[in-house]
Amino acid sequence: MLNDIILPEPTLRRLPWYLAYVEILKSQKVEHVSSTQISRALNVDASQIAKDLSFLSLKGKTRIGYEVDALVSALSDFLGFRTPHKAYVFGAGSLGKALMQDSGLSNYGLNIVAGFDVDPSKIGTRVGDVPIYHIESLAEVMEKNPATIGILTVPVNKAQDTADTAIGEGIRAIWNFTPYRVKVAEGIVMSNTSIYAHLALIYNRLNADS
Amino acid sequence: MLNDIILPEPTLRRLPWYLAYVEILKSQKVEHVSSTQISRALNVDASQIAKDLSFLSLKGKTRIGYEVDALVSALSDFLGFRTPHKAYVFGAGSLGKALMQDSGLSNYGLNIVAGFDVDPSKIGTRVGDVPIYHIESLAEVMEKNPATIGILTVPVNKAQDTADTAIGEGIRAIWNFTPYRVKVAEGIVMSNTSIYAHLALIYNRLNADS
Repeated sequence: MLNDIILPEPTLRRLPWYLAYVEILKSQKVEHVSSTQISRALNVDASQIAKDLSFLSLKGKTRIGYEVDALVSALSDFLGFRTPHKAYVFGAGSLGKALMQDSGLSNYGLNIVAGFDVDPSKIGTRVGDVPIYHIESLAEVMEKNPATIGILTVPVNKAQDTADTAIGEGIRAIWNFTPYRVKVAEGIVMSNTSIYAHLALIYNRLNADS
Repeated sequence: MLNDIILPEPTLRRLPWYLAYVEILKSQKVEHVSSTQISRALNVDASQIAKDLSFLSLKGKTRIGYEVDALVSALSDFLGFRTPHKAYVFGAGSLGKALMQDSGLSNYGLNIVAGFDVDPSKIGTRVGDVPIYHIESLAEVMEKNPATIGILTVPVNKAQDTADTAIGEGIRAIWNFTPYRVKVAEGIVMSNTSIYAHLALIYNRLNADS
């Protein structure tokens, strides 16, 4: 059921909103939902919703709309949340450890199977269930328990080097939590979660407000 | 030094990149940097960088560029990373706990001073240094140790209610980590960190690739 076409980023941003909303309806035992209803609840144009949902093989019925159960399943499958994806965390500092302990990520298909660091006091320990290795053991770990996604939580001055090393050993997607703008070759998937930019936005808006 | 003008979002996204880069230069004892150098390192147009940096009171010198030390200080101050901002975490589940344990956030001016939940087994405990209260104690905690920022990590079906409650008690900014699209009144600052959308993007691009 996983899609193999490249979806536009705005669609990929909105589909999880729809999923969250229909999951609430499901928990309330609601059976059907129309794009007009989703539109009112989420403040997204109804025709946009119909267009986004048209990427799914699922069809809504005139007047009745979509079956809630089927829509939850179709969206979760389509977004890849029900397929396990193995990931490594690079950098077992406070954010890295936090992500390794966030069991919620596995509900969205992300299985963190190893962590890497250079601090001798961390090597050989575990964070939650996740074993921490020295970055020099990457090739070895990759052979035993390969992953496709590398989560980057190292200090900024190590971000580019670490990404290069990870990609060199076969990592195919970098999820970058550092504020450094890592460069990758074409064909490598890159996603930035800019925690610090979001903080800067909040501080700026709060300050401009007061 | 905190700015009190509303900066464009793209500028707020780029300024932390510049900060991360000049922090690396500082650690390498580099003394000066030009916008052309920043441009080459980060793949951002040099004139755009000059324009973004023009929001700061700092001026670069012809041929020499900006003083690295001064630029680090000016950017950190300007982005609000050196001013303490008090925050509460709503929802002491796995992500909420992870954020309370991420001591790195305090380096960027975010001080999480309390967590809230409804699970009796969590109330009265601590996550790291952060005490967990029942959401019904919010007004009381707000009086003793007020915060302006509410970090939302509750289940999706509680996201809107919790945001409403928080705002009702005086929270002025919502940092939403849930995939639910929370609605807030005008004047309330809203920032979404869409972890699940980023995961969906990575999965889609990986899958389309293979």
